[in-house]
Amino acid sequence: MGPDSNPEGAMHGAICWEGGATGRLRLLDQTRLPTETVWLDCQQVEEVYEAIQRLAVRGAPAIGIAAAYGVCLAARGSDPAQALRACDRLATSRPTAVNLFWALDQMRSAIQGSGSGVLAEQLLQRARAIHQSDALQCAAIGRHGAELLADFQTGDSLITHCNTGALATGGEGTALAVVYALHSAGKRPHVYVDETRPLLQGARLTAWELMQRQIDCTLICDSMAAQAMRAGANGKGKVRAVLVGADRITANGDTANKIGTYPLAIVARHHGVPFYVAAPTSTFDLTLSTGQAIPIEQRKAEEVTEGHGRRTAPPGVPVFNPAFDVTPADLISGLITERGIARPVTQETVASLFATAAR
Amino acid sequence: MGPDSNPEGAMHGAICWEGGATGRLRLLDQTRLPTETVWLDCQQVEEVYEAIQRLAVRGAPAIGIAAAYGVCLAARGSDPAQALRACDRLATSRPTAVNLFWALDQMRSAIQGSGSGVLAEQLLQRARAIHQSDALQCAAIGRHGAELLADFQTGDSLITHCNTGALATGGEGTALAVVYALHSAGKRPHVYVDETRPLLQGARLTAWELMQRQIDCTLICDSMAAQAMRAGANGKGKVRAVLVGADRITANGDTANKIGTYPLAIVARHHGVPFYVAAPTSTFDLTLSTGQAIPIEQRKAEEVTEGHGRRTAPPGVPVFNPAFDVTPADLISGLITERGIARPVTQETVASLFATAAR
Repeated sequence: MGPDSNPEGAMHGAICWEGGATGRLRLLDQTRLPTETVWLDCQQVEEVYEAIQRLAVRGAPAIGIAAAYGVCLAARGSDPAQALRACDRLATSRPTAVNLFWALDQMRSAIQGSGSGVLAEQLLQRARAIHQSDALQCAAIGRHGAELLADFQTGDSLITHCNTGALATGGEGTALAVVYALHSAGKRPHVYVDETRPLLQGARLTAWELMQRQIDCTLICDSMAAQAMRAGANGKGKVRAVLVGADRITANGDTANKIGTYPLAIVARHHGVPFYVAAPTSTFDLTLSTGQAIPIEQRKAEEVTEGHGRRTAPPGVPVFNPAFDVTPADLISGLITERGIARPVTQETVASLFATAAR
Repeated sequence: MGPDSNPEGAMHGAICWEGGATGRLRLLDQTRLPTETVWLDCQQVEEVYEAIQRLAVRGAPAIGIAAAYGVCLAARGSDPAQALRACDRLATSRPTAVNLFWALDQMRSAIQGSGSGVLAEQLLQRARAIHQSDALQCAAIGRHGAELLADFQTGDSLITHCNTGALATGGEGTALAVVYALHSAGKRPHVYVDETRPLLQGARLTAWELMQRQIDCTLICDSMAAQAMRAGANGKGKVRAVLVGADRITANGDTANKIGTYPLAIVARHHGVPFYVAAPTSTFDLTLSTGQAIPIEQRKAEEVTEGHGRRTAPPGVPVFNPAFDVTPADLISGLITERGIARPVTQETVASLFATAAR
């Protein structure tokens, strides 16, 4: 996996398959942003596994797409057993985002349905379809979200958490797709960007994406969102909504997302600010009835104690570092999907998203 | 101002006047903790000013004490005018914590009431009295808080924000004094320590203090407190209360404290967890009727974008960095002071703290 530099690529997504069925996967190393734009050249499944695990590629939809291409790397020898082993291996890279398992299930079906000799081509076709479909879903999410926020006035503020844009998906993003749609509609949104401790995906990635698109933004610590909702800051417009993504949504609408989402939802409710989750339907896990059943990844202490380049806590201090929390459906004003919006968020409205054909 | 090393001193407070009326002020440089224990040797008012401004000494009571000793440095020449100028100068070091202005008012009275020739001695006496009185107040706060938490069971959890212990005061602390009192009573509290972005006073200072005293603690990012309240973590006991300090409390009980306190109070209310503020009465500003009138210090963007050793946000990103937020009285379950407890927190219960003699 050799890093090299390709600053242009960043604007065209963070995941790129190069070449045909015997090609390679290139991933923008998101751990190096915003100070360096470095692409990883993945030739082996294990390199993709590692890239997912250490968050070089992150964001629930992006993880699924990267894993699908990872299976293609294993299929270059046209051995279905090897491709299936790649599915099993990649499924253990991270536990919470369900898009990973969804994408790997798609790839398993493709492996099982593939004729001999065309495995590599057929799997690449399936991975590309997953990628392209995600891009279309992002566009639809942006459209539905902008419709939902029809009352949004030019210059009003939004708050977002973590990164849910082009870096996190195969297209324009989930929650950020809504921001981009409002921007395209000429409404000039201002976005408060939660820095998103411990790994600062908001500060490093979302601020970077928004600035590249010349969208007005203000970086805040996660603990400042309440103050921004109450009082505003820097003369910016009133906060009209919170928009976040999701890693897994259960049948009743409970939503696992980046740690810090749940308190943000509580604080939004306290201030009467609508709280929306934007995600493609591949993020839903209808096999789980509530969020209590979602496995929450615990990550290593060093992300908290020495995340910024030097040690900032006493050696040996015990650390609790869940990567996600679960926001209960009753704190969520609406779920924005490519198929439309579930609002209010209940088992019935979630089910109806899956009952209707995609718009 | 020459740094030197004195690891023992740290355990006996962070502020030390050495010598008689012509002595010097020594301050533990809290910006270097927990990795280095460095004492600053202050001979000039300007060195104290700078130490307060760059948070080498911080914590509302500690700022007041350091400023009082700073005036003593100016008084060594026995010139009242110079000492008054020192009061004026030090009053501009930070805007929010009212203990600073309270302590400087005490010093101004001492200057005006002092006979010629004994100015330096009398001011040092007054500064030492402020310091000692704070230590006694801390002890009383600890006692009252432990009484308030009489139902606290061995092994139960508390959550705290920022640093409110021996480093922040002239004694055992405010909110942490309650923890220490519970610990002394054999109740073995477990404390979730909010890291406290952006400057990580929780991770750097509170975790360090608690570990030095062998009190069970778990470091969390600020955004994890809600998850700890809901579900607990690492097999620790249920969260029984949130305990924080204060930088200024107005006549109605509204409380300015470190940024992140307000959302913590909202989240505690959502979970039915009592939220207590512990502070000496010198933290009250009865000239202000509500918290809306409290000036909130805005600090520089770099605390957020490159606070801990390397840049973690795009160059030029706009940043909102208020050092404090205001928690409205109705979210506060009780105010724990050296004179007793205001509960519920209303203009009347606050007034009654000042109507009664100190216990």
